[in-house]
Amino acid sequence: MLNKNGNIQTFLGCDATYEDAKIVVFGAPYDGTTSNRPGTRFGPPVVRADSSGLETYSPYQNADLEDVQIYDAGELELPFGRPEPALDMIEAATSQILLDGKIPLMIGGEHLVTLGAVRAAAKKHPNLHIIHLDAHTDLREDYLGEKLSHATVLRRCHDILGDGRIYQFGIRSGTREEFEWAAKGHVHLQKFNLDWLTEVVKSLGDAPVYFTLDLDVLDPSAFPGTGTPEAGGVSFMDLLCAIVQLKQLNVVGCDVVELAPSFDASGASTATACKVIRELMLAIS
Amino acid sequence: MLNKNGNIQTFLGCDATYEDAKIVVFGAPYDGTTSNRPGTRFGPPVVRADSSGLETYSPYQNADLEDVQIYDAGELELPFGRPEPALDMIEAATSQILLDGKIPLMIGGEHLVTLGAVRAAAKKHPNLHIIHLDAHTDLREDYLGEKLSHATVLRRCHDILGDGRIYQFGIRSGTREEFEWAAKGHVHLQKFNLDWLTEVVKSLGDAPVYFTLDLDVLDPSAFPGTGTPEAGGVSFMDLLCAIVQLKQLNVVGCDVVELAPSFDASGASTATACKVIRELMLAIS
Amino acid sequence: MLNKNGNIQTFLGCDATYEDAKIVVFGAPYDGTTSNRPGTRFGPPVVRADSSGLETYSPYQNADLEDVQIYDAGELELPFGRPEPALDMIEAATSQILLDGKIPLMIGGEHLVTLGAVRAAAKKHPNLHIIHLDAHTDLREDYLGEKLSHATVLRRCHDILGDGRIYQFGIRSGTREEFEWAAKGHVHLQKFNLDWLTEVVKSLGDAPVYFTLDLDVLDPSAFPGTGTPEAGGVSFMDLLCAIVQLKQLNVVGCDVVELAPSFDASGASTATACKVIRELMLAIS
Amino acid sequence: MLNKNGNIQTFLGCDATYEDAKIVVFGAPYDGTTSNRPGTRFGPPVVRADSSGLETYSPYQNADLEDVQIYDAGELELPFGRPEPALDMIEAATSQILLDGKIPLMIGGEHLVTLGAVRAAAKKHPNLHIIHLDAHTDLREDYLGEKLSHATVLRRCHDILGDGRIYQFGIRSGTREEFEWAAKGHVHLQKFNLDWLTEVVKSLGDAPVYFTLDLDVLDPSAFPGTGTPEAGGVSFMDLLCAIVQLKQLNVVGCDVVELAPSFDASGASTATACKVIRELMLAIS
Amino acid sequence: MLNKNGNIQTFLGCDATYEDAKIVVFGAPYDGTTSNRPGTRFGPPVVRADSSGLETYSPYQNADLEDVQIYDAGELELPFGRPEPALDMIEAATSQILLDGKIPLMIGGEHLVTLGAVRAAAKKHPNLHIIHLDAHTDLREDYLGEKLSHATVLRRCHDILGDGRIYQFGIRSGTREEFEWAAKGHVHLQKFNLDWLTEVVKSLGDAPVYFTLDLDVLDPSAFPGTGTPEAGGVSFMDLLCAIVQLKQLNVVGCDVVELAPSFDASGASTATACKVIRELMLAIS
Amino acid sequence: MLNKNGNIQTFLGCDATYEDAKIVVFGAPYDGTTSNRPGTRFGPPVVRADSSGLETYSPYQNADLEDVQIYDAGELELPFGRPEPALDMIEAATSQILLDGKIPLMIGGEHLVTLGAVRAAAKKHPNLHIIHLDAHTDLREDYLGEKLSHATVLRRCHDILGDGRIYQFGIRSGTREEFEWAAKGHVHLQKFNLDWLTEVVKSLGDAPVYFTLDLDVLDPSAFPGTGTPEAGGVSFMDLLCAIVQLKQLNVVGCDVVELAPSFDASGASTATACKVIRELMLAIS
Repeated sequence: MLNKNGNIQTFLGCDATYEDAKIVVFGAPYDGTTSNRPGTRFGPPVVRADSSGLETYSPYQNADLEDVQIYDAGELELPFGRPEPALDMIEAATSQILLDGKIPLMIGGEHLVTLGAVRAAAKKHPNLHIIHLDAHTDLREDYLGEKLSHATVLRRCHDILGDGRIYQFGIRSGTREEFEWAAKGHVHLQKFNLDWLTEVVKSLGDAPVYFTLDLDVLDPSAFPGTGTPEAGGVSFMDLLCAIVQLKQLNVVGCDVVELAPSFDASGASTATACKVIRELMLAIS
Repeated sequence: MLNKNGNIQTFLGCDATYEDAKIVVFGAPYDGTTSNRPGTRFGPPVVRADSSGLETYSPYQNADLEDVQIYDAGELELPFGRPEPALDMIEAATSQILLDGKIPLMIGGEHLVTLGAVRAAAKKHPNLHIIHLDAHTDLREDYLGEKLSHATVLRRCHDILGDGRIYQFGIRSGTREEFEWAAKGHVHLQKFNLDWLTEVVKSLGDAPVYFTLDLDVLDPSAFPGTGTPEAGGVSFMDLLCAIVQLKQLNVVGCDVVELAPSFDASGASTATACKVIRELMLAIS
Repeated sequence: MLNKNGNIQTFLGCDATYEDAKIVVFGAPYDGTTSNRPGTRFGPPVVRADSSGLETYSPYQNADLEDVQIYDAGELELPFGRPEPALDMIEAATSQILLDGKIPLMIGGEHLVTLGAVRAAAKKHPNLHIIHLDAHTDLREDYLGEKLSHATVLRRCHDILGDGRIYQFGIRSGTREEFEWAAKGHVHLQKFNLDWLTEVVKSLGDAPVYFTLDLDVLDPSAFPGTGTPEAGGVSFMDLLCAIVQLKQLNVVGCDVVELAPSFDASGASTATACKVIRELMLAIS
Repeated sequence: MLNKNGNIQTFLGCDATYEDAKIVVFGAPYDGTTSNRPGTRFGPPVVRADSSGLETYSPYQNADLEDVQIYDAGELELPFGRPEPALDMIEAATSQILLDGKIPLMIGGEHLVTLGAVRAAAKKHPNLHIIHLDAHTDLREDYLGEKLSHATVLRRCHDILGDGRIYQFGIRSGTREEFEWAAKGHVHLQKFNLDWLTEVVKSLGDAPVYFTLDLDVLDPSAFPGTGTPEAGGVSFMDLLCAIVQLKQLNVVGCDVVELAPSFDASGASTATACKVIRELMLAIS
Repeated sequence: MLNKNGNIQTFLGCDATYEDAKIVVFGAPYDGTTSNRPGTRFGPPVVRADSSGLETYSPYQNADLEDVQIYDAGELELPFGRPEPALDMIEAATSQILLDGKIPLMIGGEHLVTLGAVRAAAKKHPNLHIIHLDAHTDLREDYLGEKLSHATVLRRCHDILGDGRIYQFGIRSGTREEFEWAAKGHVHLQKFNLDWLTEVVKSLGDAPVYFTLDLDVLDPSAFPGTGTPEAGGVSFMDLLCAIVQLKQLNVVGCDVVELAPSFDASGASTATACKVIRELMLAIS
Repeated sequence: MLNKNGNIQTFLGCDATYEDAKIVVFGAPYDGTTSNRPGTRFGPPVVRADSSGLETYSPYQNADLEDVQIYDAGELELPFGRPEPALDMIEAATSQILLDGKIPLMIGGEHLVTLGAVRAAAKKHPNLHIIHLDAHTDLREDYLGEKLSHATVLRRCHDILGDGRIYQFGIRSGTREEFEWAAKGHVHLQKFNLDWLTEVVKSLGDAPVYFTLDLDVLDPSAFPGTGTPEAGGVSFMDLLCAIVQLKQLNVVGCDVVELAPSFDASGASTATACKVIRELMLAIS
């Protein structure tokens, strides 16, 4: 009854060894460039702890986490302040997981962490595409002079992937310049909803896809616990349908970012993040 | 102006005497088996106090609490820890109300309290049926070895009523085993929504019905103030439509459970619970 | 870099001078007659501070606050307790703005503040109409003997404007008497939703319109941060559609009231209020 | 077990009838002139509900509430906004209690409520003295032009009692003018602490005393749950010693004001208020 | 950088193996008999997570956790509701640690968990004494008929140890009967403070001592984050001095109980609990 | 009544022009290197807004802010993430104020912001000394490899000033190495309290002094609203006495840092920070 072998903590049902795992979960608790309200650094441990309130079984997908081999590596120990060292550490961890033939599932942290993972994924998969669900464009060239920022992260991904490889959904906030830049064909941007995803999924075939989910794509009614809530978003059921469609894709890596537990007084946003991660795990496994 | 006759506190508009009342409201502030976040013990007094912010008139049903005779008995004084004494006290109170020819409306507390009331109702009405709105199946045979738990309460009701007498709606969380057990016909379980209720209402005719409402059937956007919020639930308007349909049934007892005020920072969940209770009172009167 | 000219604080993008401005924003931080939970007095400064988290560009209207001349006058210094002095100060400020040929946009505060602004607007525009979005009727003749109250404010407006000039939408709470009084044709009252607005907009032509938005017309899921949350309201997208339709009207004044930041633990309600105000500014400019 | 005689709620141990009672407790839930953060209107019911977490026995005074006859009349139903009607109702209730030969113990509410009770007490006891514990002077002649305000309440009491009958303790905030006015001998004002109370108690002999306790006299470390916390206050033990000394006085009425539960996230301020009230009840009985 | 060996989480600096450890920390997340506000079940994991904000070095004791061999076993998985199974599991875990020649340091949970550990310690050390710091007597014979309760736990310990072996400090709440029972010599009870501890420490010599610390012995100003805050307690520095004196004793087991993170909005109580545990570890090592 | 000249917001009583001012207040809302809980970036605006709840008069110093010429420059617009640009902007602003012969009073933000101001002050005053009140040593050579950090800021100041010019008070947390480094005479470090300050003040004569106040020097009971609360600190009255002693010194610059409003649920910490700043303004004027 007394545990003598170390107090191992994992996300719900992620009890495989690293070697056996098909999916490797890790946290990227960085929020150094957050311009509004910080606190996403606390997302990963809170999600892990809260996941025990969930069932391993999904009645939506009729599937169970107990049937999937997942390893939870805990949080990366990222330094504070300047972003480069954190991004390098994230890239290194993601590369290792990819090298070992597993799928990385990163839990943020702010959205900038995606850049580290995309760097690694693009190295292994030159033909990488990105599916991006978010309230915000994140396409600025720089933000207050800073090239590495949550507000520029998809632009930096575009620097790597080039035109036409990024698909954005649910977008409802950005500068006029960002929307105009997107409209020139640099990225595919669908405003307000996720409707066009079905078509995109069909067109992508078995191309390698990195899926990045900024949880603020959800309406603040469904997900208030984030630093920059933006009204007019999608419902949980919309998001769930999107995630289930990922089954048809070749997802080589993914992340779920921007939960800020400090703004989740009821705990409902954290519980929702856990459920989203469960469904994502089941969809990509 | 100075009240010299004792400081009587009641739910909005429930100012009938016990003798005159058609409906008797009482609180069951027990949360001893809550496995996640406790606090539903504070539900009944908070609902009572907050109800004064509501109007007695319902524009939905064009009816007014002032036209209904309801008595509020306050909270039962339930002991802490082990569940049996609490359930016995709830059963005794419910039996008394039923014996006096009135309809009990219990405010929880955790969902286990329903078992005490159902025991009493099933004794008086051997042909009792249950309509159960919830996010969770609550059909486990036991939970960590415990037979009496919020997670087993409908299974215990099934022990009493037998197959085919329990109708579950809105269910979106449970173990695979629970869903499979339900699918064998032990209970009628509708996943995710309340759509099938209209049909069930028709089929039940004037059979005696106990209505148990776990407020977490609502989506967390509409009702974050509960211990185990579960995304993907029904809207307030869906629930309201369901409640209005109860008018066509022979409801012999009912309860509203699982409000946890500690997780309701805005007060919106408590206000919603009050409104739900008002509509329920008007529907069954 | 160091600002030597005074620390000027404005709502996002409202950097015009008073003279150049077409729209003048001011706060009316009064909540003296609030019967339930007070705190709307803190609405205006919190909205101003939080607006910096928003973009100036609206992808809904494809318009930008940077292209509109708006002046932010800060808060009126209203006294506490009795309502008359506060209403007089609001009326005076509104009259001045109207006299100078600008559109006043008042941020509340409780709903009673609307009366001060309507008095001023009705003096300048004898043919004034009111479009009123709210969860509550606000049509009582008096409240606990008090004629000036958040619960009577539209009745007081009716005293000024007379029958048939007030259009209410989204109403879902009130006494039976209020609904009956409205049904006699004193005001146009649409229960529950905003559907009928399109028709009303057409019928009003270029008549002068005062638009008053009680944010609790939104469902508590979308807007919990208010003193009296009332389930069953409209969604943010419903409200947004309503606001965009104001473009077709001759809006001579407007207000946004009843944000209570104390009940907005996540900040999502405040952010939503900011977004609503941005869209309203763009629609009436 | 089921209570059929109405749901009577009282402060801990206050179960005497009005007729038998020596002390009568009532709430004055008014906060209409609060200039900073409102919310003391919720003080009385929250104190009553929370008092059940306390013991009836005081190890400090070796006395038990069960040995004292106290009646709890609940809250007065005070109107919102303008202060006069509320003060009149408070005066009437206090007069009645005094007329019936009992000691009133009023729970606020903001400090202005004291004026209503003092009016009544001064009528019955022309030689009334006031002992006033507070962080703030409350001696303004008017506040933003308003004569009736929490910031003027002791000045209004002085209007009734005249020079030298008011003893203030713990004061650490006010305008320069207020301190200067006090120093002219209009009132006895001790800054910062309660040390001088022992001497005052001796000098007062059996003169009739009204005791008014603004809980913000406590340091915010001991009592953060108030609208205007003011650092540098007294400790709970200092206050307790002061209260126990009241035993030697002829206390004809008293109040405890300015608990604002909204700012008491931990509940410790509310619990402290309950304990203070228990000790006060035992001291004056 | 990527951790491939399991995500091991420990209290600050507790990185020894079980075999090498002199002290074994474990959590007892049980709060089933809490009569007031539950939530201490969340104490152990929150303490562990928050401890990383602390330094391992104590300037008070000039000692460092890095120089002590401590193993953190994580939480026991205790069932909900009835107390017996939880107490049995705690007793078994404590017995094992004692059998292996190590000192158990248990983190609660409510105070009842102490009984499980004391049972184990008393079996190994028939001459066991208890030093008990608390705001509450915890000496009831039963509580609402329940023998096993946070309110009876020291009485149950007395059942095991007999008269004169329990030393209570800081006590300021209880029934008159409890204080009278203690005064008969059954236990040594010091009211209000810890002053007498120095003398007791001297008198105990090298007798085996179990040290149980209910954190509510601290004044609510220093420790608001507990279910039943009780004003008039000791300061952090008082408690620290008491803990340092434990160095002179033969402490064979200890616990720190009653942190309830839900009532610790600022996090200061949790941080204080962590610091107390660090100092306790250093004192008994 | 309607303000047509821009909505100027200042700290209480700071209504001088820049030219006339003797003291210049500005905010430094940077928290990029915070390792524990971020949020001090919100300190300056919250302090400014809350200061209106304070009086301008200090009964402690018998002085009034209305008699002092102070200008409030609002917040510097500091970029996010990497610290160098923020420090450069702070240094530039401070240099300007010093050049103009005024005293800078900076409101943080995290403690690292002090470095920018000290750089400027040391350039103008080569003989600069620092008086530093804090719970933490802040003397690390680097923190996770980062030289610029809240945990290294005083070490960086020592790089500039050299041995023996920094006086630290109230310190109760740090690594063993930091305490040992200090003990070698690099800085003067007093553990736990402020007692030695009187002597230091005498010895400093009219040497130029920079005063930096980390508000976490206060005990968490007096000041919970900070990112890393550390029990065992000084009381508000201790701090007040220290501040009043600054009157005898030649203070050429100062700052007040580490208020984190997110952890100040009651508002008492913010109110205390405002009062501390008022007393500091009066002491150095």
